[in-house]
Amino acid sequence: MATQETSAQKLEAVKNAMIKQGDVVKALKAAKTAKEQVQPEVDKLLALKEQFKQLSLLDDGAGSKFDRASLESLLLKRFFYAPSFEIYGGIAGLYDYGPPGCALQNNILSLWRQHFILEEDMLEVECTNLTPEAVLKTSGHVERFADYMVKDTVTGDIFRADHLVKQVLGQRIEDDKKVQSGNAPKPAKGQAKLEPLAAETRSEYELILETLDNYVGDELRKLIRRLDIRAPSTNNEVTDPVLFNLMFETQIGPTGQFKGYLRPETAQGHFLNFKRLYDYNTGQVPFASASVGKSFRNEISPRQGLLRVREFTMAEIEHYVDPNGKKHSRFNEVRDLVVPLYSADAQQAAAGPTRMSIGDAVEKGIINNETLGYFVARIYLFLTRIGIDPARLRLRQHMSNEMAHYACDCWDAEIESSYGWIECVGCADRSAFDLTAHTKKTGEKLVVREALPEPLIEDKWTLEVNKKTFGPAFKKDAKAVQGFLDSMKIDEAWDEVKLQELKEQLAAGSGKTSITGTDGKTYELTDNLVTIEKKTIKSFIREYIPSVIEPSFGIGRILYQLLEHAYYRREGDDEARHVLRFPACVAPIKTLVVPISHSGDFNPFIKQIVTGLRRSNIANKVDDSGSSIGKRYARNDELGTPFAVTVDFQTVQDRTVTLRERDSTKQIREKIPVILDIVKDLVEEKTTWKEVEARFPAFVSQEV
Amino acid sequence: MATQETSAQKLEAVKNAMIKQGDVVKALKAAKTAKEQVQPEVDKLLALKEQFKQLSLLDDGAGSKFDRASLESLLLKRFFYAPSFEIYGGIAGLYDYGPPGCALQNNILSLWRQHFILEEDMLEVECTNLTPEAVLKTSGHVERFADYMVKDTVTGDIFRADHLVKQVLGQRIEDDKKVQSGNAPKPAKGQAKLEPLAAETRSEYELILETLDNYVGDELRKLIRRLDIRAPSTNNEVTDPVLFNLMFETQIGPTGQFKGYLRPETAQGHFLNFKRLYDYNTGQVPFASASVGKSFRNEISPRQGLLRVREFTMAEIEHYVDPNGKKHSRFNEVRDLVVPLYSADAQQAAAGPTRMSIGDAVEKGIINNETLGYFVARIYLFLTRIGIDPARLRLRQHMSNEMAHYACDCWDAEIESSYGWIECVGCADRSAFDLTAHTKKTGEKLVVREALPEPLIEDKWTLEVNKKTFGPAFKKDAKAVQGFLDSMKIDEAWDEVKLQELKEQLAAGSGKTSITGTDGKTYELTDNLVTIEKKTIKSFIREYIPSVIEPSFGIGRILYQLLEHAYYRREGDDEARHVLRFPACVAPIKTLVVPISHSGDFNPFIKQIVTGLRRSNIANKVDDSGSSIGKRYARNDELGTPFAVTVDFQTVQDRTVTLRERDSTKQIREKIPVILDIVKDLVEEKTTWKEVEARFPAFVSQEV
Repeated sequence: MATQETSAQKLEAVKNAMIKQGDVVKALKAAKTAKEQVQPEVDKLLALKEQFKQLSLLDDGAGSKFDRASLESLLLKRFFYAPSFEIYGGIAGLYDYGPPGCALQNNILSLWRQHFILEEDMLEVECTNLTPEAVLKTSGHVERFADYMVKDTVTGDIFRADHLVKQVLGQRIEDDKKVQSGNAPKPAKGQAKLEPLAAETRSEYELILETLDNYVGDELRKLIRRLDIRAPSTNNEVTDPVLFNLMFETQIGPTGQFKGYLRPETAQGHFLNFKRLYDYNTGQVPFASASVGKSFRNEISPRQGLLRVREFTMAEIEHYVDPNGKKHSRFNEVRDLVVPLYSADAQQAAAGPTRMSIGDAVEKGIINNETLGYFVARIYLFLTRIGIDPARLRLRQHMSNEMAHYACDCWDAEIESSYGWIECVGCADRSAFDLTAHTKKTGEKLVVREALPEPLIEDKWTLEVNKKTFGPAFKKDAKAVQGFLDSMKIDEAWDEVKLQELKEQLAAGSGKTSITGTDGKTYELTDNLVTIEKKTIKSFIREYIPSVIEPSFGIGRILYQLLEHAYYRREGDDEARHVLRFPACVAPIKTLVVPISHSGDFNPFIKQIVTGLRRSNIANKVDDSGSSIGKRYARNDELGTPFAVTVDFQTVQDRTVTLRERDSTKQIREKIPVILDIVKDLVEEKTTWKEVEARFPAFVSQEV
Repeated sequence: MATQETSAQKLEAVKNAMIKQGDVVKALKAAKTAKEQVQPEVDKLLALKEQFKQLSLLDDGAGSKFDRASLESLLLKRFFYAPSFEIYGGIAGLYDYGPPGCALQNNILSLWRQHFILEEDMLEVECTNLTPEAVLKTSGHVERFADYMVKDTVTGDIFRADHLVKQVLGQRIEDDKKVQSGNAPKPAKGQAKLEPLAAETRSEYELILETLDNYVGDELRKLIRRLDIRAPSTNNEVTDPVLFNLMFETQIGPTGQFKGYLRPETAQGHFLNFKRLYDYNTGQVPFASASVGKSFRNEISPRQGLLRVREFTMAEIEHYVDPNGKKHSRFNEVRDLVVPLYSADAQQAAAGPTRMSIGDAVEKGIINNETLGYFVARIYLFLTRIGIDPARLRLRQHMSNEMAHYACDCWDAEIESSYGWIECVGCADRSAFDLTAHTKKTGEKLVVREALPEPLIEDKWTLEVNKKTFGPAFKKDAKAVQGFLDSMKIDEAWDEVKLQELKEQLAAGSGKTSITGTDGKTYELTDNLVTIEKKTIKSFIREYIPSVIEPSFGIGRILYQLLEHAYYRREGDDEARHVLRFPACVAPIKTLVVPISHSGDFNPFIKQIVTGLRRSNIANKVDDSGSSIGKRYARNDELGTPFAVTVDFQTVQDRTVTLRERDSTKQIREKIPVILDIVKDLVEEKTTWKEVEARFPAFVSQEV
């Protein structure tokens, strides 16, 4: 059952309910009903109004109320992050995190480690950013980790080819909309009047935009030429698209002859250490490795703030599992979790996401296997825990044409923001692709060895060298010929197809055939030198390259989307106030400590509070600047600080302080140790502000 | 008062005490004294024996008992760290951290954040590794961050020049020692017999080795030629030394025209963000920024494992302070801390370090100022807290010739290991060097503005343009001339020397002089166009570039030294066991959970324990492999796991489990919830194992 509901639809529903409830209240009041009877209905109305306000702030559809510019100015002003090297003019796609951004990221990562590594006994690794070329050749990155770029033939400005096509066609469709509705702007001097597009042209453009990923190589070049795609600001022609590798290249060591790259993902480091990790885990499978670190992509045109950058923090998990049994021992814990799944089939049918339990999804084959399902669920739980709005989170399956060739299933956690639905976590079944590639390249077996419950008996083609005749026949060249024979092995086992071919060649040549030794010379091999035959082989060990399930988190992207979800504006007495409603677990500062004025009498109390908070490892900040108490609260609402403890003149009398909560702006007043205990429980999520409000009387601040 | 005591002296003292105590016990036993009277003396003897054993393991002087090879093999086997890209042959100077190394590093960093950032409200930043060339030109790294290298003229092998000189002269001295003592080995075929060195030659070599840092440029070239320094393994001549820049270079963006480097330190990122940080801190000074991240140095010859690598984690603090008042508000908290200080004077006098209170050191001017002293103390406290042996930790002042030209004082925290005394933390007063350089380069004022208690009145040279005549005189060239005038400003204030020079030139030319405009053309300036005179200026704001005190931590170095300090061997029943005695706060795994056998009856208890530990965020590991319980304990001693909870058949009967401590190998036995509480208190350092042993009866394990 699909329950796709857009923000706009939700907003509409709440608005209708609000109007209806307003009528109820009006009617009661008109009938002069007793106040106690009217009040509950008034409360309902207020709740609906609040809900409406929140939804309108969140709404990001047409006529959006979400004001990105105002959030961005807040983020810059409070130094969540800022362009790197700003005083040197900045560099696109590089950002520095200031104190609140840093703390927010640290808190997200610390919860990530708790939620994944500690909870599942994952093996954390930290591998280097510098990576030699050979490794990234094997992984396919040297050849394939590239985007197409084109240049303005006159100015030399560079564009990512697909972005350019998207921009130009998008503009043409926009223009057409205006022309069709009679709102076309007057053409600038010297420019032609905008003409409407033919209906078939417009649908072709729309189709191309949907399937743009399919255009590569010469197809892309033809597309650019056929549609006459030009540089937008100059209208100059562009060059043919060429591949640009997205890895940063450097030289390792002083010789200048050892090429390396900055890693484009942390995954390869895990794979190269597979053997050590497997041993560390005393040979038990399944197990997972995990890593938090930087990755680098030399984007052609960085854009969208933190969403497409050149250097970013990733958190990656590689879970190694028997390809023949992708069950998960803790699957029961997530079986009943209902999540919004957007399957490939639903996308094909142009339907929306469906809310479904993970158990059902795996049972129906929508999610390929239990382990993948388990991680999809764990990712969902993590994201909602740190404050991502579940209403703007979905799990989208890759379409078969966008899936990497080695993957058998892939789900992205997509989060909606003012930039649309953005992939923030990928969860792919990478199968045995990487471990196989590195095994083949290095000869180092990245395998699991398992004692078989009973021996396996198989008939296999084998080759045996006749030691008596082989050495004397080739003398000092024996090694080169032996090398040729060894080349017919895969992972130390004979390649049976090649053995049979060789046997056939020998038969065809009446017991003789030419082969090329590893020294490049040609030798004659005769059938008295080797015996090729089918033998019955008994194995006691099963050896296999494990499959890898990879949940991969883009931390910067998650952080930005969280900022959008956390942001709202509150109308204040004088001006609109900006608030970030982080859950306490990720809030950069958990508690603000404010003396109401500059009196020295407050110092001992401030010290007592700060020491108490530090003892509980609660990040806090004293704001004893000269600003008004209201300004100081507002400043910390902007940082998303959930709680504030205020020391005032009453404190000096009776050792009580007030505790204010960010979103309700309500306060209570108690003795310092009681307040410290409450804050600790709130931060550790052992109680909620609602519970606190129920337990303690509200305090109406004098706000000096 | 110097209390320098070498490890060897300490060992000797303990040995003597041990022999003496042995005699006491022997005498008592010979006299058939009652057992209760002998026992305390026996205990004393055992304690001395243990102390002796520990000291001999630690001893790293001549005839060292510390076995580095065996520690290294343990670190590799248990995957603390391993060479990166090992299956591709590895790359010198790059290491990956495995699970225990990673956890150890995470714990060190988490304590670092607690000890510095949280405790002092520092502003954490995270800046990018990629850095554009312009920034590193200003900081001086493009020009000066380099080492001299030479090449073997035949093989092309590359050496760091100073390392090569050190190695060759060291070898000559070693050889001479052997010759002098008559132990010279017979010369290999075709090689000349080793000849003794002249006494003056040997002392010259020794002097050069001590002052090697002083040889740069042509001096270094002359030294290599004069002493005929050759490549050791080939005996070939080497090329003249050339400077090799140690930064990794790359291209940012697709144009191939934007040069960047991987940062060699995190400090520059702090400085570039100074203005935002200063604003974030609402203009209050002093304050500090802090950062944890990677830095990169393309070492010519990486060596000594983690001590000299190409990619490493740094934790850096930049503390901004008024150059005229380097007091510290929390100095009192460290004033009485006694630390081993090795001042420049003591080094000059070839004396040893002196134990002295921080207060005394600052008062006597040994440490330049309170802020520097405060951080030196905090660094000492941090290092000892994470488990660095205070007996092998000293604070060494830079000699005036090794100090950077901008620094007015610098202290290194040096830790002793089998590699000698190694700088692990630097604590420098960088003065205003970097902020001044970036201000000059970018025109962005990285300054503090302070309201003066009363206005400052000063006489200053100023220049004023005569607006009536200036414009008409130069017309469209006015801008170029104005540019020339502006070039006589520093930070928007007139350069008084230059103004006076210009005034003199005008006077010398009878009111006329030629100047060069910013367009490169020559113009005539006359004294009716500008007025240069001394004026009385009243300022209400003091503007200054703050001084920077920089504690800078090499995390990999600290981690390795900690591993050496934590390592010891315990003689077991069968074979020597390796132990890492980490304090619980840094131990990778805090608690091992072991079922005594594979019985399914144990599962609910294992689950209860693990869930309880997780709830308290205590990193734990279940080892239910088939190995004997002794083997499993041993395996976790190697990981430095301080506690082990064992579930056995008695658990099924009475819900009790045993708790074992790593170093004493003693156990107690209690109900599960009691044990969980004890473990929590131990890990959080709220109790000690000694206290636990005193409170609960010892349990003698059956070790099935």
